Amino acid sequence: MEAKNKNTWENNIRRVTPYVPGEQPKNGSIVKLNTNENPYPPAPGVKIALNNIDADSLRLYPDASIGPLVEELSRFYEVDNDQVFVGVGSDDVLAMAFLTFFNSGKPILFPDITYSFYPVWCELYRIPYETQPLDKDFRIVKEHYYKDNGGIIIANPNAPTSIYEDTSDIEDIVSHNPNSIVIIDEAYIDFAKESALPLTSRYENLVIVQTFSKSRSMAGMRIGYAIGSKKLIKALNDVKYSFNSYTLNHTAIIAGVEGVKDKEYFNEKIQDIIELRKYSEKAFKRLGFTYPMSGANFLFVTHEFIPAKELYEVLRNNNIYVRYFDLPRINNYLRITIGTKQQMDRLFEFLETYINDR
Amino acid sequence: MEAKNKNTWENNIRRVTPYVPGEQPKNGSIVKLNTNENPYPPAPGVKIALNNIDADSLRLYPDASIGPLVEELSRFYEVDNDQVFVGVGSDDVLAMAFLTFFNSGKPILFPDITYSFYPVWCELYRIPYETQPLDKDFRIVKEHYYKDNGGIIIANPNAPTSIYEDTSDIEDIVSHNPNSIVIIDEAYIDFAKESALPLTSRYENLVIVQTFSKSRSMAGMRIGYAIGSKKLIKALNDVKYSFNSYTLNHTAIIAGVEGVKDKEYFNEKIQDIIELRKYSEKAFKRLGFTYPMSGANFLFVTHEFIPAKELYEVLRNNNIYVRYFDLPRINNYLRITIGTKQQMDRLFEFLETYINDR
Repeated sequence: MEAKNKNTWENNIRRVTPYVPGEQPKNGSIVKLNTNENPYPPAPGVKIALNNIDADSLRLYPDASIGPLVEELSRFYEVDNDQVFVGVGSDDVLAMAFLTFFNSGKPILFPDITYSFYPVWCELYRIPYETQPLDKDFRIVKEHYYKDNGGIIIANPNAPTSIYEDTSDIEDIVSHNPNSIVIIDEAYIDFAKESALPLTSRYENLVIVQTFSKSRSMAGMRIGYAIGSKKLIKALNDVKYSFNSYTLNHTAIIAGVEGVKDKEYFNEKIQDIIELRKYSEKAFKRLGFTYPMSGANFLFVTHEFIPAKELYEVLRNNNIYVRYFDLPRINNYLRITIGTKQQMDRLFEFLETYINDR
Repeated sequence: MEAKNKNTWENNIRRVTPYVPGEQPKNGSIVKLNTNENPYPPAPGVKIALNNIDADSLRLYPDASIGPLVEELSRFYEVDNDQVFVGVGSDDVLAMAFLTFFNSGKPILFPDITYSFYPVWCELYRIPYETQPLDKDFRIVKEHYYKDNGGIIIANPNAPTSIYEDTSDIEDIVSHNPNSIVIIDEAYIDFAKESALPLTSRYENLVIVQTFSKSRSMAGMRIGYAIGSKKLIKALNDVKYSFNSYTLNHTAIIAGVEGVKDKEYFNEKIQDIIELRKYSEKAFKRLGFTYPMSGANFLFVTHEFIPAKELYEVLRNNNIYVRYFDLPRINNYLRITIGTKQQMDRLFEFLETYINDR
């Protein structure tokens, strides 16, 4: 029986299953290898720019066109200004791209194991989707993407598997889909062989999304961007301006410019992380782990006899945070960020003792 | 006849009518009274905080819960931490509130003349809506909001009219709507008599949205917030976490805290602007303008014989930017921000000469 006089406003609330982001512990003694942050600070110019910022100018709205940062990115990637769209982290850019590009009514396609926000944005914007199974080695089966669809999104390197697919395979997928828009989410691409970005000059229906959160050490600034044909970028900007004109704040624009300018620092730190990844691979192997070849700043490891969940918990109890997904097919793997050498050594020392004493 | 081999990916793009934001000229000699920014800089602590920021920490994701700023706001407004939601400007907060609270399928209600993004967000999220006409003096007719509806949003003070409705009228609307969620968009409230915020302790279905862009002189930082019952704030946070975990960047959190802490500066600058508003009202009156009584940091003026559009254009040609909306009922009005005394005097001197020589 319904209670009388019960107010019904609560029925109007959208019910969701909140995503649980990787923990962000405040305790500095924790070895934090759980959210794929860069172990190095941003380029030195970022600090200088922020420490000299004209705070008085904050009274004014920021540049809605994000002009200086768009220009710096277009210089870096050797594309035109009107081929670059910037948003508040690549999550914002991707959500906007889903909203803008996946309006056919047909299902969009993406792998069964990939970034967990893709199905969330589909549900948010009521976009139908069909996941395509990765093969037993977690590789993308490109032929799965040759059928009729309403759009395609592929993370390359993929998360959380770390696997990089060759540009030639990406091109095969794009060239088989002249009637869809294809988004390649390259959050981790700077740690891999090469970006599919040059393909955008030949495929007007291809858009590449990247981020400042990984290779540019600026997760705290929330900057992401898309690069593609002028038509696609104009469409993104039109949608953005239609419902939120001022997105990036003034400090993000200024810091972002400095983060792109310093190519030498950028390349040096990426090389350092790739070296540490090689070092870490050897250490994991020695300890009885296997992993797919990584094109990212993390490794996706599984141990020959110790369950991933056990390792996750014991590491956590010892102040070493890694990521564990209790999901079909990947629930015996850990996603472990490449940190500093000190952090990795602390991890390996702990694992060695734990495995030997078990 | 359809062209053969024509690729159809362009059909999948969402088509929108982009909103045109107020111009943000870079020329410093322009008297910029077109986007309701505060003429004063942010509180001195904001500059100090930014100039001392630990740039190295930007490599880490920001605090997803925006903890320090939520705490500072809850202290300021004397509410609990879990009654405060923070977003990237009040546009972000309002868009999120539309998405979260207006899910009944019934039309939501708002005035015919109000903030132009309300119908845009309705279209974006497919929320039906019915606008309610303001009366001939641009006042809200509260009885219009006593009928069955799927939610209500009211800007108070309203934009672009500047008119403030008493809290008792707001309460009448809320109390007549126990089955809907009511959002009061108080972007300009600090320049008016009082906020409806205390009503949130008695009405669980009421949410107040405010911004750092006006009274706190931080439009460039993109910070907005909602205050309401724990149930409503939890629902907003759940939706936020479900599709974008990290929204406010680290600098906005730090600068925002300092922007709230300094109550003395905040109150002093608001008083200065209210004094300048009185001064400006007298000057406009002397020049043959009328306007509704303003509760905001702008005036909505119309001249006794010169068309608003003519004034808008002639002012613009003379480097004085004001806002003109070529829309039914308000196309003979100008929305003019209260700037510094120097800026207002330059405006009045120009107008005096122009009106006399015409």
